[in-house]
Amino acid sequence: MSDSFDTIRAVLWQNDKLRLLDQRLLPQQEIWLEYDEPRAVADAIRDMVVRGAPAIGVTAAFAVVLAVRNQLAAGREGIAERLKDDFAYLAAARPTAVNLFWALERMQQTLQSLLAADTDLLEGMLAEAKAIHDEDIAANRHMGELGAALIEEHGCGVLTHCNTGSLATGGFGTALGVIRAAYAQQRISHVYADETRPWLQGARLTAWELVKDKIPVTLLADGAGAALMKQGKVKWLIVGSDRIAANGDVANKIGTYHAAVAAKYHGVKVMVVAPTSTVDMSLESGDLIPIEQRGADEVLSLGGQRVAAEGAEAWNPAFDVTPAELVDAIVTEKGVVLAPNRQKMAEMMAN
Amino acid sequence: MSDSFDTIRAVLWQNDKLRLLDQRLLPQQEIWLEYDEPRAVADAIRDMVVRGAPAIGVTAAFAVVLAVRNQLAAGREGIAERLKDDFAYLAAARPTAVNLFWALERMQQTLQSLLAADTDLLEGMLAEAKAIHDEDIAANRHMGELGAALIEEHGCGVLTHCNTGSLATGGFGTALGVIRAAYAQQRISHVYADETRPWLQGARLTAWELVKDKIPVTLLADGAGAALMKQGKVKWLIVGSDRIAANGDVANKIGTYHAAVAAKYHGVKVMVVAPTSTVDMSLESGDLIPIEQRGADEVLSLGGQRVAAEGAEAWNPAFDVTPAELVDAIVTEKGVVLAPNRQKMAEMMAN
Repeated sequence: MSDSFDTIRAVLWQNDKLRLLDQRLLPQQEIWLEYDEPRAVADAIRDMVVRGAPAIGVTAAFAVVLAVRNQLAAGREGIAERLKDDFAYLAAARPTAVNLFWALERMQQTLQSLLAADTDLLEGMLAEAKAIHDEDIAANRHMGELGAALIEEHGCGVLTHCNTGSLATGGFGTALGVIRAAYAQQRISHVYADETRPWLQGARLTAWELVKDKIPVTLLADGAGAALMKQGKVKWLIVGSDRIAANGDVANKIGTYHAAVAAKYHGVKVMVVAPTSTVDMSLESGDLIPIEQRGADEVLSLGGQRVAAEGAEAWNPAFDVTPAELVDAIVTEKGVVLAPNRQKMAEMMAN
Repeated sequence: MSDSFDTIRAVLWQNDKLRLLDQRLLPQQEIWLEYDEPRAVADAIRDMVVRGAPAIGVTAAFAVVLAVRNQLAAGREGIAERLKDDFAYLAAARPTAVNLFWALERMQQTLQSLLAADTDLLEGMLAEAKAIHDEDIAANRHMGELGAALIEEHGCGVLTHCNTGSLATGGFGTALGVIRAAYAQQRISHVYADETRPWLQGARLTAWELVKDKIPVTLLADGAGAALMKQGKVKWLIVGSDRIAANGDVANKIGTYHAAVAAKYHGVKVMVVAPTSTVDMSLESGDLIPIEQRGADEVLSLGGQRVAAEGAEAWNPAFDVTPAELVDAIVTEKGVVLAPNRQKMAEMMAN
């Protein structure tokens, strides 16, 4: 039933170019930007033309295709060496979402295989990027079914944070994919969405996606979450992730941890939905996940106008870490991990 | 030492008129509005030209003076009856801050006394309004000392929510009064302030006050509070209140409860600072406090421009209720109540 949602795709490969829907301008304007230079794509990731861990991964894969095409102009000889700077530049775009590094690593391995096999480089790299994109959508669809099945309620309300939908992924969404599937199955009847300061992904992007899908959505200030839970209006907090450590600790958009603490206090269950490309088994715990600090202006200004008094500073971490003990379920395309810990995470990843 | 802060006053009686600093425009513009009609003052309270529970109380008292002056034009005879509509209109301005009703009741009693004593009505009413104002400032100064003494740390960080300073009171502030006093005593070295969506009292007003006082202030998105606490950057959450029930439950700006839940989880202590004019002993618990629902536009739009997708709704309670069990100390001008409950609150109020 979830297939009834013909959701938008914000990352497209068309006419030999990468096209990105500029998420900084939504929902007021739907502007598509075209890219044929890999570094311009890296800048677009850093500036949040595209955001959302899986979408960043997909975008980076296509950026590598652009880099390969550029470097092929100087011949195939030594191309792996010549691509190093492009890979490094792309890897430096944003630090927290591990999907970026996962996608670059996968494209690097494909490059090595293609070079060794002496087959068409550009065609092979493009096929791999498209595979990454297609696999992400398929993973989202599968996670949607797995996650929806965890919601035993009928017609309940859920709270989500940030945007984890089609815009944040190859398509369909992680947490929003589960919400779409569970809404189609009438397990969920209403979605509450944190506006998600400072970038307002909830107000601008999640509401936009859900309104398009005709799924009832009510926005609230991030600080209102605990009051909402106190009133019994939501049974689940459903979120995505930018990186999950080996022990099940979850990095996600700032405010997620705040919401998860409130969820625990109120007996609201917490579901984290992310493909295994988001899982970083090399990190023992969430304490080791690098947390991006973004510019103070995101907090001090609104729509380009300063709101805070001159002289005030801002602390603006883009992500926080929710410890595994606050998480009831991690849903990946490889399966569901209930009450996640190191052992269960390892077993799931070995599937 | 706290007297070193010559803080601004946002409610003034000058040249026989009430002057209010328009808090909707701060910090970009410092515009003073003049009032000589009581209903225009009620509208100003509703529209948040002035806000903050104690400041609303002081403002309402002066509004009654304006009403008395108007009605005196038709003579003293039957004036109490003729003032009823004005009292009712003022009482309907905002529902949660009990200081509004407290001030109106006190002015009503003064009116009755003056009528019975056959003394100058306008002079007597104005004197009472000025007394309410002066007493509020004195209460704030005293609470500043009482609250600061609770902070046993040296040079610690604290988190505050909304604005509870000179702008929210007769002058000096409740929670911000404690912060000012404790900063002067070097117990506090740094203030973290929630930006306080949707109205951004923290970003616009608290930061403005603290910058003027040269107290270091760092703003953060409301959802970042838990991450801040996790890092051990704050020892206290210090907030004001709009109404405190007989059992010590505390209504305050939306987001306070969320922050208090996170504080409890992290072992951060919670201090509520409010004059006894904020205490409503007629309400058994916080569940009975009327919570104002404000317009959805405050969440859906920013600076007059719609940010959320058309079709999205918003849930916008202006306040939430923090149960007494999450509060470590309630500070009033009558004294400090540690681990508040019904009995201790009654004892403090009987002082």
